[in-house]
Amino acid sequence: MTKQKKQQSIILITNDDGVTAPGIRNLAEAVKDLGKVVVVAPDKPQSGMGHAITIGFPLRMQQVHVMEGIETWQTTGTPVDCVKLAVDKVLHRKPDICLSGINHGANHSINVIYSGTMSAAIEASIESIPSIGFSLLDYSMEADFTGSRKYVREIVQKVLAMKKVDKHLCLNVNIPKAPVELLKGIKVCRQAYAKYEEDFDERRDPTGKKYYWLTGEFKNFDKGRDTDVWALKNNYVSVVPVQFDLTNYVLKKQLEQKFL
Amino acid sequence: MTKQKKQQSIILITNDDGVTAPGIRNLAEAVKDLGKVVVVAPDKPQSGMGHAITIGFPLRMQQVHVMEGIETWQTTGTPVDCVKLAVDKVLHRKPDICLSGINHGANHSINVIYSGTMSAAIEASIESIPSIGFSLLDYSMEADFTGSRKYVREIVQKVLAMKKVDKHLCLNVNIPKAPVELLKGIKVCRQAYAKYEEDFDERRDPTGKKYYWLTGEFKNFDKGRDTDVWALKNNYVSVVPVQFDLTNYVLKKQLEQKFL
Repeated sequence: MTKQKKQQSIILITNDDGVTAPGIRNLAEAVKDLGKVVVVAPDKPQSGMGHAITIGFPLRMQQVHVMEGIETWQTTGTPVDCVKLAVDKVLHRKPDICLSGINHGANHSINVIYSGTMSAAIEASIESIPSIGFSLLDYSMEADFTGSRKYVREIVQKVLAMKKVDKHLCLNVNIPKAPVELLKGIKVCRQAYAKYEEDFDERRDPTGKKYYWLTGEFKNFDKGRDTDVWALKNNYVSVVPVQFDLTNYVLKKQLEQKFL
Repeated sequence: MTKQKKQQSIILITNDDGVTAPGIRNLAEAVKDLGKVVVVAPDKPQSGMGHAITIGFPLRMQQVHVMEGIETWQTTGTPVDCVKLAVDKVLHRKPDICLSGINHGANHSINVIYSGTMSAAIEASIESIPSIGFSLLDYSMEADFTGSRKYVREIVQKVLAMKKVDKHLCLNVNIPKAPVELLKGIKVCRQAYAKYEEDFDERRDPTGKKYYWLTGEFKNFDKGRDTDVWALKNNYVSVVPVQFDLTNYVLKKQLEQKFL
């Protein structure tokens, strides 16, 4: 029994919508029998925080009771801070896997770069912890997570069952907003070149001073049928393997020859 | 004369240390005769903000006079917000090039991911604006920018002189902390796998409650002689071409065959 307990996988869970979001509860519940689940997540929404870390001021962290039977900590930090704090101050070791989400809203295409959910997963993979970020294409707090839970479970089980997992494995999983019976399965994809075209909404405050709300229209510039945007549009769950080496090797070769 | 003016390059400058940092002044002064320089930068330090954007509250922006003869705007946003605001609300067009920095401190290796300086440059490249981020390996506000200014000028001139610039070109340039006469030239590199090993500094506030300062030790796990860390250690100015397609194509192929 002791031996069996020792072999149990430690599953770290975080997100960017905050510890009380339905998405993280659904994620924890979907995998809680696959290992020992520990949640370390922000105490407030941190959407769009990208790979931000907190260096100008200190962090707070406290244990909270929000999910029955699941050890849960909330921090004042960003999603990336949460992963760092979890390893150094909560688990005192690296978990076997880090899961992030389930995000309330899409993180496909270029959104991977702005997403706190995915940045937490990327941070884990930098730390040699295999990781998966999950996002549902539904911003509503009342979203239906039935399909998400099914595929979360399937994908986490597949990764945990791998004989040799790439320690830097990082997957960006997006789930279409559709009834579970309409989901067609999983598709391994590349990141689409699709993004928001900004158009700040300019307003005036009661004293007449200008202020700006970030807004924009989503546009897909990528006609490929091997992208996450294509897969999601066709009711597939998209899985994009993500890396943290940002070197553009094609451009590197060109610059070595021509530039310098 | 009018025609000549129209052909002048528009150079957008931003940073993450804030509009009053010596680094951005040195950057603007180093290139101000190469085109029309417009500065749109944060009104306060935004180091470590990564690719964060502001979506939970609105932004403010105002014109300020901090650099003689250079149009300058400060915003309440992140470095990435600054690029978006500059294009949509200040320039009302895409600049010919976007420069970010000069950062007070290194942005080599994995730091590219946490860096507000580099995230601003990456944002520009997503928007099809060629961009360069500059960082000096000296955190001091009294740093000597002589070598930085020389190489900033040389690299910006090279990019502006290119017959056909990749519209997504993004360069991560780091400059060693050394007297200009000891700098050996430019080296095109890949991003090293080198990173901070976290070790939060745990303290107690006057009421006895715990808080944590992010700290850590920098470690280089990469023995390659083609990395930015190697180049900088050997007194070369490192130039890493950066991409925003995070797809791990090697892992994608493996997963297509084995995972699903």
